[in-house]
Amino acid sequence: VFGEVLSGRVVERESQLVVGIDPDPWALWPAPSESREPPAGTHSAAARATRAVLAHCRELIDAVAPACVAVKLQLACFERLQAPGWEALRQLVDHAHGRGLLVIADGKRGDVPASALAYAQALYGGVRAAAGEVPGLGADLATVNPLLGADAIDPFLSAARAQGAGVILLVRTSNPGAADFEEATLSDGRPLWERFARLVDELGGEAVGASGLSDVGAVMGATAPAHLERARELMPRAVFLLAGVGAQGGRVEELGAAFADAPTAARRASVLVTSSRSIAGAFASTGEQPARAARAEAERLRAAAWDLSG
Amino acid sequence: VFGEVLSGRVVERESQLVVGIDPDPWALWPAPSESREPPAGTHSAAARATRAVLAHCRELIDAVAPACVAVKLQLACFERLQAPGWEALRQLVDHAHGRGLLVIADGKRGDVPASALAYAQALYGGVRAAAGEVPGLGADLATVNPLLGADAIDPFLSAARAQGAGVILLVRTSNPGAADFEEATLSDGRPLWERFARLVDELGGEAVGASGLSDVGAVMGATAPAHLERARELMPRAVFLLAGVGAQGGRVEELGAAFADAPTAARRASVLVTSSRSIAGAFASTGEQPARAARAEAERLRAAAWDLSG
Repeated sequence: VFGEVLSGRVVERESQLVVGIDPDPWALWPAPSESREPPAGTHSAAARATRAVLAHCRELIDAVAPACVAVKLQLACFERLQAPGWEALRQLVDHAHGRGLLVIADGKRGDVPASALAYAQALYGGVRAAAGEVPGLGADLATVNPLLGADAIDPFLSAARAQGAGVILLVRTSNPGAADFEEATLSDGRPLWERFARLVDELGGEAVGASGLSDVGAVMGATAPAHLERARELMPRAVFLLAGVGAQGGRVEELGAAFADAPTAARRASVLVTSSRSIAGAFASTGEQPARAARAEAERLRAAAWDLSG
Repeated sequence: VFGEVLSGRVVERESQLVVGIDPDPWALWPAPSESREPPAGTHSAAARATRAVLAHCRELIDAVAPACVAVKLQLACFERLQAPGWEALRQLVDHAHGRGLLVIADGKRGDVPASALAYAQALYGGVRAAAGEVPGLGADLATVNPLLGADAIDPFLSAARAQGAGVILLVRTSNPGAADFEEATLSDGRPLWERFARLVDELGGEAVGASGLSDVGAVMGATAPAHLERARELMPRAVFLLAGVGAQGGRVEELGAAFADAPTAARRASVLVTSSRSIAGAFASTGEQPARAARAEAERLRAAAWDLSG
């Protein structure tokens, strides 16, 4: 069961930190060598840009891996590099696994059941075609948009469970616009996001292991800490992926209410804290070498979250 | 403005039909020649499967193009083929454009603003990187999930408008689970999907051309025709993409209420009808050659929709 895998990994690495990998092709770390850029003309711009992005992401992962339990790959940033970007995703999944890190495929997919199945095959275990087995990305977790309803989530859950992986539903996201619909008040007086939370609890109830954690988690915005207590009440067994720490304004110290009321290992693993730009871009404010600054910022966030859950 | 492009194309081709391209690697048309399958071992299974899928999709597009105004590429079905699948997407966009068809990138993306921008770059015009211009897929329309709110939709709209393209928001989808959340009753007594409809109308109001059609459309399930009259009332200027005709149970003849109250050209272009499996799989029930059966079914759907909007 995924909850066991996660709580084991969190305890072993003493970390709940997830480094977000969302490379901006204009804000890559300085190339360590000329090898990053092949001569123009021999490859497409997409292939050249991807090579630079891939080198940057590998360095970033290597720099922060000791402070992290997982990487979160922002699929959008790779899709804008087209086919080479998807190849880079696959390589980064392997790279992160090689460093002992779990991989969250952050694509926020959601579609009618037949298409949801295809997305699930893409992100988890792959598909058997007449031409042979086409492997999936091999993600340990994937983010899913719940708007289309339970029948559209089932294919993700089935594909995840077949791999011992998990699913994370968007419940209350970190952007300002989240208030537009996710906080719309329903006829029972409660906001819409609470209904997503109930579904997280219901679906996850089917696969709760000895740790007490389920395999259906929730994306909660660290930018709206006021919701965390209520969210935990509604989803006592779910892993929360707290997004928006750092550049988006969320602060680790305000997230205490997110942790589950559970034995230590499960309590610690009940919250994953994710940060992207504040780690990769830490060097801009400190003037240090990028990898060193990223490592220090990751270690600072790791320790803050760990202390909070002690 | 996109509304003009679309209404011109609909009138010129006398069609509102969108063929959905969502290839199942186990249900491809019989290969026309041995060229479809290179010898095993020379390429990865993903590359071999993609080659077969690509040949199938090209034949399907060629067969039905005369009856259609657009193709809808289901991104999920290509992503499960990984990087080769994304390369196939690009080739199919070019192929469809070469046949005079518009292209709808059906990915139902939705993310916080920084990530939404990256998705928009992937699907529309691309991104300028240090390594050069990385072109986007070049879609004329892309489907977007509105759950994350207006700030998450803006990047799609800006990128689309820069290319003279459009955006289609999910409003009320065609799957049974759509009832779970999209029809949740809000405190004002109205279902959630009506709030999405209001956003479609509001955002589209910024770019209405002489035809009276905006560049922000709505996905409406053809499987729930009872909603169409109310939807049109809330979104008088929007193009409706009616999904779920055929295999999912929607019938063209029941869609009359979806058309806008507008002069002929705009009324006709105010509804796009999309069908996938019932076209590609028509041969299974008729016993005809697949391309011929697909062409006949597409022509039947085209004529039915055209008659309805006359």
